[in-house]
Amino acid sequence: MIKVNDNFCRLSANYLFSEVARRIDEFRRQNPGTEIIRMDIGDVTSPVCSAAVRAMRQAADDQSRTDTFHGYGPEQGYEFLRAKIAEYDYKVRGVDIAVDDIFISDGAKSDIGNIGDILSCGCKIAVTDPVYPVYVDTNVMAGRAGRYDGKRWSNIEYLPCTAENGFIPPMPSGNPDVIYLCYPNNPTGTVLNREILAQWVDHARHHNALILFDSAYEAYIRHDDIPHSIYEIPGAKDVAIEFRSYSKTAGFTGLRCGYTVVPRQLHGVGDDGHAVSLNALWKRRQCTKFNGASYIVQRAAEALYTVEGRREINETIDCYMRNAAVLLDGVRAAGLDVYGGEDAPYIWIKTPDGISSWEFFDILLKECNVTGTPGSGFGPAGEGYFRLTAFGRYEDTIKAVERLKRFNVK
Amino acid sequence: MIKVNDNFCRLSANYLFSEVARRIDEFRRQNPGTEIIRMDIGDVTSPVCSAAVRAMRQAADDQSRTDTFHGYGPEQGYEFLRAKIAEYDYKVRGVDIAVDDIFISDGAKSDIGNIGDILSCGCKIAVTDPVYPVYVDTNVMAGRAGRYDGKRWSNIEYLPCTAENGFIPPMPSGNPDVIYLCYPNNPTGTVLNREILAQWVDHARHHNALILFDSAYEAYIRHDDIPHSIYEIPGAKDVAIEFRSYSKTAGFTGLRCGYTVVPRQLHGVGDDGHAVSLNALWKRRQCTKFNGASYIVQRAAEALYTVEGRREINETIDCYMRNAAVLLDGVRAAGLDVYGGEDAPYIWIKTPDGISSWEFFDILLKECNVTGTPGSGFGPAGEGYFRLTAFGRYEDTIKAVERLKRFNVK
Repeated sequence: MIKVNDNFCRLSANYLFSEVARRIDEFRRQNPGTEIIRMDIGDVTSPVCSAAVRAMRQAADDQSRTDTFHGYGPEQGYEFLRAKIAEYDYKVRGVDIAVDDIFISDGAKSDIGNIGDILSCGCKIAVTDPVYPVYVDTNVMAGRAGRYDGKRWSNIEYLPCTAENGFIPPMPSGNPDVIYLCYPNNPTGTVLNREILAQWVDHARHHNALILFDSAYEAYIRHDDIPHSIYEIPGAKDVAIEFRSYSKTAGFTGLRCGYTVVPRQLHGVGDDGHAVSLNALWKRRQCTKFNGASYIVQRAAEALYTVEGRREINETIDCYMRNAAVLLDGVRAAGLDVYGGEDAPYIWIKTPDGISSWEFFDILLKECNVTGTPGSGFGPAGEGYFRLTAFGRYEDTIKAVERLKRFNVK
Repeated sequence: MIKVNDNFCRLSANYLFSEVARRIDEFRRQNPGTEIIRMDIGDVTSPVCSAAVRAMRQAADDQSRTDTFHGYGPEQGYEFLRAKIAEYDYKVRGVDIAVDDIFISDGAKSDIGNIGDILSCGCKIAVTDPVYPVYVDTNVMAGRAGRYDGKRWSNIEYLPCTAENGFIPPMPSGNPDVIYLCYPNNPTGTVLNREILAQWVDHARHHNALILFDSAYEAYIRHDDIPHSIYEIPGAKDVAIEFRSYSKTAGFTGLRCGYTVVPRQLHGVGDDGHAVSLNALWKRRQCTKFNGASYIVQRAAEALYTVEGRREINETIDCYMRNAAVLLDGVRAAGLDVYGGEDAPYIWIKTPDGISSWEFFDILLKECNVTGTPGSGFGPAGEGYFRLTAFGRYEDTIKAVERLKRFNVK
C-alpha cells in the first residue's frame, strides 16, 4: 500500500494567493480592459543589478571551458560567498559569524521549510499572528500542528500582533520549543527594536527554546535602533538560527539564492538527553538531500558585495522605500490607519468600519482596481487588516494612491 | 527544550566519499608530487555545451532589464521547459506524459531526498544492494529504517545484485510499500531490459507498491531493448515516480537542474483508506517548501532540446562512453572480472582473490595511483566490488588503464 503522509491531507486546500488570483481573474472576465494595479504578491519588479548580471555572464563562460568548469560544489556553498557574508553582513555590524556557520541555499523558503527535518516531530511551536503561512504549513506537514478548528491549530501557540499591542508579540505562555520570528515583519511591515529583541533572546535562553529568525527584509531597515541580525543581541548564538535571502535584497526571486546561519555553539538535545550540534545536523541534512546552490547564482550573489553591487542594490531598495513612503502618506490621506512601511517594504492597513479583510479586498478591486492581500490570509489576528507591497513600479504606486484618495476608501 | 530529530543521530558518521578523500589526502602527504588519477566521485569533467551557455548569457541579460525581468517563477517550473521535456524526453519514445505531471527542480538528489515528505513514516522500503546511499540515509532520517546492525537496517529490505544473479534484483519478499530502482544503475553500471522492468511494474501493480525510479543515467543507454523511462512499460504511470537529472546528461552538476514526473493517475491512500493523488501532494510540497529552480538554469536546460544542444550533449556523452569502453577493455586485459559500462558511465570491478573493497582501494591507490570507490560503501552486497567512473578526461582514462595493465592488479 502506498501510504501517504496524512498530515498533508489536513492542510487547507485554499491557498491565500490562489484565491487572490482567482478573484482577480473573475474581475478581469467581468471587466475586460480595466487596468488593475497589483500590490498583492510580494514579488520585486526592478531588474537584477549590473554587477550581478556581469558576474553571471562571466560564470556562464567559466562553465564553457574545461579549465574553469565547476561541477559539484560544496553542499554548504562556496567559500568565496560565505567569506563575503561573514565579512559584510556580520563583521561590519560587530557580529562574529564563522564561515562554517553559514549554509548557502536556493532560497530562504527552502531552508525555512526544510529546517524542520532536524527537529523532533514532538516539538511545540509558537508563531506570531499574522504570519508567513509557510511556518505553519510546514509544521502541519510534519505532524506538529495538532487539530485545526477552522482558524487555529491546537498544538501551535499563536502570538497575536495587532494595533492594540503595537504589533509587539506577547511572550509565549505555553513553553514552546521553537519560536518563529520574522523581523522586519511580513506581513505587517513592523519591526522590533534592540531592547525588545533582547527580551526574546533572554526568554529563549531561560526556556531552552530555539528561535527561527527570518530576516529576509533586513536590507529595508532605516532606523539605527533596529537590529539587522538577531546575532547583534549578545547570547543569541546559543538559541537562534537566522535565515537570509537575496530575493528582496537584490531582486533574486527568480535567480534563487539565500543562506542560513546555524552557529556551532547552538545545541539541541537527543532522546536520551545528550547535546547535539544543530550545525552538524543541518550539514548532514544538506549533504544528504541537497547538492548546493547553482554556481552561476552564487557568483551573482558574490558580486553584490562589491562596491558597485552594494551601491546598485541600495539604490533599488531606496526606490522601493520611496514607494513605501508614498503608500503610507496616500493611505493616511485616504483616512485610514496604517502601520509598517518605515523599515520594511510592506504597508499594513486597518480596514475601516470593522469590515473584513476579504470585503476590503473586493471593495478595493472593484472601486479602485487596486489589489492587496487580505490580512486574514496570514492568520486569525490578521482579520481586519490588509497588506500592500512597495515592490511595484513608482508610477504604478503613485497611480494607486491617487485612486485610493479619489475614492476615499473610508 | 530544543528536541532534535533523533533519527539523524543514528546515521553513520562515516560518509563514503569523506573516507575516500581522507585516504587520498593521507597518501598525498606521504607521497608528495605523485600524480593521482581520480575515478572515484561521479562528477563530470567536460564543460557545459555552448547552446546552454549562450542561453544562460541571454537569460542573465533578461534579468537586467525591467521588461524581460523574471521574478518568482512557477514552483513547478516554467512551461517552456516542461513542454520540451514532455515532447523530447517522452513523446518521441511513444510515452504520453502531460506537462502537469512534470516538476522542475534544482536536481534529482533534492527530489529523491524530499519525496519522502509525502509518504507515511510507516512505509516499508526496499532498495537494491549496492545502492546510492541517499535512498537509505533519507529514510533513516525520516524514521523508516528501524535498527542498524552495522550492515543493514532492520526495516529496509535489501535486494542483493551481484555477479551471481547477473545484477538483476530478486523480487522483494517482505511486501514493501516503496521500492527504489535506479537504472542504468549507480554504482554497478548494469541495466534492466524491457522484459525484466515489466516484471517490476507488474509486481508493484499487484502489491500496491510505489516504484521510485531514478533514471539519471538514461542518456548513456546504447542498446535498443533497454527502456529509457519506466513509463515505456504499460501501466507504470499507476505505480511509478520517475526522477531525471541534467547533471550527467549535460554536465549540470554545478548548475543544478533536474525534474520529477508524478503522473496524475498515481494514487496513494490516506489513514482512512481514501485515495490521494501523489501529484497533488508533491505539488503542495513543492509550493510550500520550494520556490522553483533558477530562471537562468531553466533557460539553459531548455537549450539542451535544440538541434545544436542535443548534438553537443550527445558528443560529450559519446566521449564518456569511449572512456567506459577503454576502461572495460583495460580492466579485462588486467585480468579482472568487470561489469557495467555498456549502457552506463560506471564500471563495476570484482576484486581479485576475495580481497575487500577497501583493500583494493588501498592497493590501487598505492600501486597505480588510481582511485575508485569501494563497493562496500554502497551496501553489504557491494563488498568485494569496486567502482570506476568514465567521467574523467580521455587522456587520464588511457593513462589509468596503462597503469592498471602494467601493474596487473590480479
